[in-house]
Amino acid sequence: MSAITNENKKTDKVEFPLNVWYVAALAKEITDKPLARILLNNPIVLYRTKDGKVNALEDRCCHRHLPLSMGMVEDKGLRCGYHGLLFDEDGKVIEVPGQDQIPPKACVKKYHLKQQDAIVWIWFGTKDNETPTEEPPKYNFHTDPNYVFDGDVYKYQAPYQLIHDNLLDLSHLGYVHVHTIGGDAHTHMNAKLVSETRGESVFIKRYLPNSTPPPTYTAAYPFKGKVDRWQELEFYPSHIRIWTGAVDVNTDSLDDPNRKGFHMRGLHGLTPETSETAHYFWTIATNPENNVEEIKKKVVEQTRFTFDEDKVVVEEQFKNMKKFGEQPTFDIHVDVGPNRARRLVKKLVRASNK
Amino acid sequence: MSAITNENKKTDKVEFPLNVWYVAALAKEITDKPLARILLNNPIVLYRTKDGKVNALEDRCCHRHLPLSMGMVEDKGLRCGYHGLLFDEDGKVIEVPGQDQIPPKACVKKYHLKQQDAIVWIWFGTKDNETPTEEPPKYNFHTDPNYVFDGDVYKYQAPYQLIHDNLLDLSHLGYVHVHTIGGDAHTHMNAKLVSETRGESVFIKRYLPNSTPPPTYTAAYPFKGKVDRWQELEFYPSHIRIWTGAVDVNTDSLDDPNRKGFHMRGLHGLTPETSETAHYFWTIATNPENNVEEIKKKVVEQTRFTFDEDKVVVEEQFKNMKKFGEQPTFDIHVDVGPNRARRLVKKLVRASNK
Amino acid sequence: MSAITNENKKTDKVEFPLNVWYVAALAKEITDKPLARILLNNPIVLYRTKDGKVNALEDRCCHRHLPLSMGMVEDKGLRCGYHGLLFDEDGKVIEVPGQDQIPPKACVKKYHLKQQDAIVWIWFGTKDNETPTEEPPKYNFHTDPNYVFDGDVYKYQAPYQLIHDNLLDLSHLGYVHVHTIGGDAHTHMNAKLVSETRGESVFIKRYLPNSTPPPTYTAAYPFKGKVDRWQELEFYPSHIRIWTGAVDVNTDSLDDPNRKGFHMRGLHGLTPETSETAHYFWTIATNPENNVEEIKKKVVEQTRFTFDEDKVVVEEQFKNMKKFGEQPTFDIHVDVGPNRARRLVKKLVRASNK
Repeated sequence: MSAITNENKKTDKVEFPLNVWYVAALAKEITDKPLARILLNNPIVLYRTKDGKVNALEDRCCHRHLPLSMGMVEDKGLRCGYHGLLFDEDGKVIEVPGQDQIPPKACVKKYHLKQQDAIVWIWFGTKDNETPTEEPPKYNFHTDPNYVFDGDVYKYQAPYQLIHDNLLDLSHLGYVHVHTIGGDAHTHMNAKLVSETRGESVFIKRYLPNSTPPPTYTAAYPFKGKVDRWQELEFYPSHIRIWTGAVDVNTDSLDDPNRKGFHMRGLHGLTPETSETAHYFWTIATNPENNVEEIKKKVVEQTRFTFDEDKVVVEEQFKNMKKFGEQPTFDIHVDVGPNRARRLVKKLVRASNK
Repeated sequence: MSAITNENKKTDKVEFPLNVWYVAALAKEITDKPLARILLNNPIVLYRTKDGKVNALEDRCCHRHLPLSMGMVEDKGLRCGYHGLLFDEDGKVIEVPGQDQIPPKACVKKYHLKQQDAIVWIWFGTKDNETPTEEPPKYNFHTDPNYVFDGDVYKYQAPYQLIHDNLLDLSHLGYVHVHTIGGDAHTHMNAKLVSETRGESVFIKRYLPNSTPPPTYTAAYPFKGKVDRWQELEFYPSHIRIWTGAVDVNTDSLDDPNRKGFHMRGLHGLTPETSETAHYFWTIATNPENNVEEIKKKVVEQTRFTFDEDKVVVEEQFKNMKKFGEQPTFDIHVDVGPNRARRLVKKLVRASNK
Repeated sequence: MSAITNENKKTDKVEFPLNVWYVAALAKEITDKPLARILLNNPIVLYRTKDGKVNALEDRCCHRHLPLSMGMVEDKGLRCGYHGLLFDEDGKVIEVPGQDQIPPKACVKKYHLKQQDAIVWIWFGTKDNETPTEEPPKYNFHTDPNYVFDGDVYKYQAPYQLIHDNLLDLSHLGYVHVHTIGGDAHTHMNAKLVSETRGESVFIKRYLPNSTPPPTYTAAYPFKGKVDRWQELEFYPSHIRIWTGAVDVNTDSLDDPNRKGFHMRGLHGLTPETSETAHYFWTIATNPENNVEEIKKKVVEQTRFTFDEDKVVVEEQFKNMKKFGEQPTFDIHVDVGPNRARRLVKKLVRASNK
């Protein structure tokens, strides 16, 4: 079964939820130059066929083990860069140069890959669920003409769940992101938080009424003074949608989904590379009325700066966890959201091991 | 107990003498910007409080394990850079932002730290000796108005006892330090050596009468020709004091502690980081009569150059020991001093395991 | 016994053929500045004595384990750079500075080393064969006045047998070396191949009649158009001799060893460093009639470029083999030569374990 990782092969235990579409790449990353990427412990080659489809195969020639990502995309498939074996989209060898016969076992694993709204998703699936039964998630803010977006891919030297913790608890903004999206630490820490688990997702909402707009906000939008600010998060086991923004204080209601003001829509794809490393695919979308390109550039830049700050914190946190080994801990009020997410992932891992 | 290292936790065995003040830092290193340092396998944050005291805590927030060395010093304590928990000097959490209640177990370990004569010392202590019963060592040449000094901190990729061996056997000067403090190899190797163990220290004395002054000496002092040269070493389990110098041949007696001439007073703090790495804190003091700053600069520069040479030798030695594994060896005449020190350390490790 | 490696010491099993002369260095590498090199898991110091002989000792002073390669060659031997012990050519300590008595066990291992035709060879030998019974191989193209040559030493992050595989299957030229010695991939893959095992060597011959000369060939020789091209390989367990070249189509017979045209004579010394790394010593000789230096320079440059390409492929192949672990594989037509070589090495390893 494809999604059983090397490590899992030994223990027969799955360590990640499998019946989930994970982000494999941003669409713009996948070209006819093959890309090597390890996803859930599986070394995979990602490429775009000559007719524009995205495809994913095991990243290993079945003849002498050269990564297929060192090969080249041709009309009929992906050719290995060592002895020229040619693989079709299903991973079957369809040509052995200099030889008529093709050994019957000459093939590599193919993965389920789909491009959807500028994101490329991959499905691993449990044994009884190898073929995905549902479509990958839609993400409207990559197609909505009112929104502009851009993004990037980070490699984290930390497990993906530490990034969940980081993103789901936005109270850290007051200490980690003082210079961008932070603002007053006290306001963040005292914001009321509502969280709820609904099926396989977690919803978290925090309002910061009558607060000082942080630097990124004032740089992107002409606020008059104090603002009513919101943070609405939807956690799914493979990605998080974060809608943040603000309106001038006492204008639109924070409860009104059609409130005006400044909006940032973040998509955060979090895909385990191994049990100790993760891919972090992010895009940020915003809907400025004027100076569209300029504001987009500013928002993306500030977002990148913010995410760089988070990366340092989370990676140092993980290094320290390894340095100290198992240690007692305790929860505080901000851990409610992250803990819901951890319980959900735990449940799904258990289900994937059935 | 604080000094039990991670490794020791497993084996219940202590690998370093514990009832000893170790150098944790040079005083100039400790500011209100926290400093991360592993000492005897303990990850520790060192910082100076707003009222100027040095302090040392376990380098791990007890909430989510971020190193406290990533935090900031405030009036009331050290604040974690993730969720803002505030730790007082004893390692107790005194504020959880956004929450009134402080969990009763919210604290980290505090270490005994004392600044003395421009050196910051740390005490680990055995179980029955957790609170130091004695003051840290005095070091007069950091306060004596006739002396000027400077120093630095090196990280060695080698166990601290290999640095003991190197420093306590100054016969290597003739081969390793030809271009600075070495001089004639033959003279070094044939110098008479007296060594003696007194309680928890080892004294070593070597005189090189009627020898050629090495480059560093002639650069710093107007010797007329040949010199009578001395090397007097005091080994303590956590540091070595090395007094070297020379007078013009047949002037002052080498036995006279008030002899004139050129003097170098080295303090060498050797603190295990782990069983395979060490911190090396060094200062060099000298007492020139004229051109004080110029001669000090020259002496520190040449000392640094010399210690860089030693570092290469000792680290290559250790790499080679690991490469070859256990191998037979034998002693020669120069090993008398180092062997006394090793026996002493062994005795103290045994005592720390009682 | 000298050739028993550290690893072998544990398992009592030899992993490389031992009764074989391996390349230890190119002669030009060995000077009176000692050179550290690990060969078949043995850390060795190679140096040239003051009277011009090559010599090899265990790279560890028997006093305090400093690599002897950090020492200096003197008239009477190699002096350690720490305490000055002096080793003669047999590895015996003949001087301990400052001490009359020399401990009777003060010696290190000496290896059998011989320079022959610009190559320095080393013999390990099995227990019953510690002293080589035969001379190192001759290599005429380093002494033939009609030939000019140069070469280099590469360190591979891959086992030496993967380099055998690469060199013995020249069909990869069409995919890996398109820009130098490759040429038409189809021609390579369809070339008839004859291979034969003769005693402790394997012979492989491929003719590519009526083919397009590759870039390196046309750069070095004034071919008129299509060429008849040959590749003749002799595999020995420690090195491979590769004779390639071409004549204008339908002029000299490919079967005629005195055929004219363009000739490249490669010597490829492949010596395990460890079970996962290898030294690759190569020279390339050619016999131009005019512009000798210019053509030699061109041929060496292009060869270097080609070998750099191979290095990337083989190292990536090995990385991927480790990433994927044990995986099924299959053979294609081009694997005949490499498989003969692998069987031969296996036989010799078995013999070395008797």
